[in-house]
Amino acid sequence: MIAMHFHVVTLFPDLIQTYCSTSIIGRGVKAGHLAVNAYNPRDYCQDKYRKVDDTPYGGGAGMVLKPEPFYACFESIPREPDSPVLLMTPQGKPFKQADAQRLAGHSHVTLLCGHYEGFDERIRAVATEEISIGDFVLTGGELASLTIIDAVGRLVPGVLGASTSLDHESFNEGLLEGPQYTKPPEFRGMSVPEVLRGGNHAHITEWRRQQALIRTLERRPDLLQTAKLTEKDRKFLAKLKESL
Amino acid sequence: MIAMHFHVVTLFPDLIQTYCSTSIIGRGVKAGHLAVNAYNPRDYCQDKYRKVDDTPYGGGAGMVLKPEPFYACFESIPREPDSPVLLMTPQGKPFKQADAQRLAGHSHVTLLCGHYEGFDERIRAVATEEISIGDFVLTGGELASLTIIDAVGRLVPGVLGASTSLDHESFNEGLLEGPQYTKPPEFRGMSVPEVLRGGNHAHITEWRRQQALIRTLERRPDLLQTAKLTEKDRKFLAKLKESL
Repeated sequence: MIAMHFHVVTLFPDLIQTYCSTSIIGRGVKAGHLAVNAYNPRDYCQDKYRKVDDTPYGGGAGMVLKPEPFYACFESIPREPDSPVLLMTPQGKPFKQADAQRLAGHSHVTLLCGHYEGFDERIRAVATEEISIGDFVLTGGELASLTIIDAVGRLVPGVLGASTSLDHESFNEGLLEGPQYTKPPEFRGMSVPEVLRGGNHAHITEWRRQQALIRTLERRPDLLQTAKLTEKDRKFLAKLKESL
Repeated sequence: MIAMHFHVVTLFPDLIQTYCSTSIIGRGVKAGHLAVNAYNPRDYCQDKYRKVDDTPYGGGAGMVLKPEPFYACFESIPREPDSPVLLMTPQGKPFKQADAQRLAGHSHVTLLCGHYEGFDERIRAVATEEISIGDFVLTGGELASLTIIDAVGRLVPGVLGASTSLDHESFNEGLLEGPQYTKPPEFRGMSVPEVLRGGNHAHITEWRRQQALIRTLERRPDLLQTAKLTEKDRKFLAKLKESL
């Protein structure tokens, strides 16, 4: 049974379909865990030129996506009625791992890709939320949609294989992940830390937690405000700050 | 002459090449403004199984990308010696529009894609900076790399066509963009604002600026700290805050 249906409204359906057939997400599609469908507003134009955009009211450079074909396209999607509809726009709420987890609890998610030059304000009315993947400008919403499909799709059971690989990864407890090592033990003068090469699992667990705390404090102290910290974590951080 | 060369180290070169041949970025490649090349560490393995990852020291689920094939692959790239080398990781510095502008000033940018389960810590040593596109977990660094290629590539002259379309877009002055409208003037009971339908350009310019300020205040007040504001903007914002 398909656990998650992604529906994407886009002028570039090939971009969506290609990524979703060749990546790890593609494996999830082939295995029947996910379905990704793209819908093109151009196929819903009523005029003979299949015009999806037009000049902006008030003047200015660039073309603006028209509301009519976009609405007609959106309304044709066989989606679950009250499922989330996300409009990809730099004006949206910044997307976070908690959003990925929330969306993974639905069975249908619809993603609306804007046009790189802009879209008619009235298109916003069909979205249940507006999402941004960051404070930068892209040529369109396609990469933002794929990012969300990737972040949400990988949480759907079965997509990544062994479910344990979702444990202890970046942001799951609100901390950055610490360093990881594999063979060889020495490489160009850089060695694997002794603690990881010994077999003491309690030490390894403690070392990993401390490294995650150190890295988060160094690089993203803002994350510590919302991270799930134990009393032991807090003590370690207090000592760390003292030593700086 | 090719103004910008992107080099991508990835286990999924097809994902990179497909996006960069079909999107607006693909148009920039075809027109000779951009070049995008992908390099696969798997092609640089010395062992007969072409093994790119191995189990982590210290135990745990998931495989970790090995340093040797990654280094061999990276060192084969025909890049400009002192050009930026970006490692895609959730532990990196959050990517912003100012980074896109900075990177667009180079002629070579190398992007290193991590593995979805992790990479050996020693791989970090080849990067000149570590970049994150957001606080979420992806299956790999490929979408992050494509996001950066897209955000940087569109700033390269010629890629978007008319250069004026880069003016007044989101984040260019640190503000969110205000609403845009195109035909029809009425759609499902929603109308285009009167000011945009009149021909008074001074009024239109003022209205657009005010809408950008209103939207930024409502949705992303954090951006106002660093936005380029005029004295008039500040007065308008002060009045706006009073009326709330």
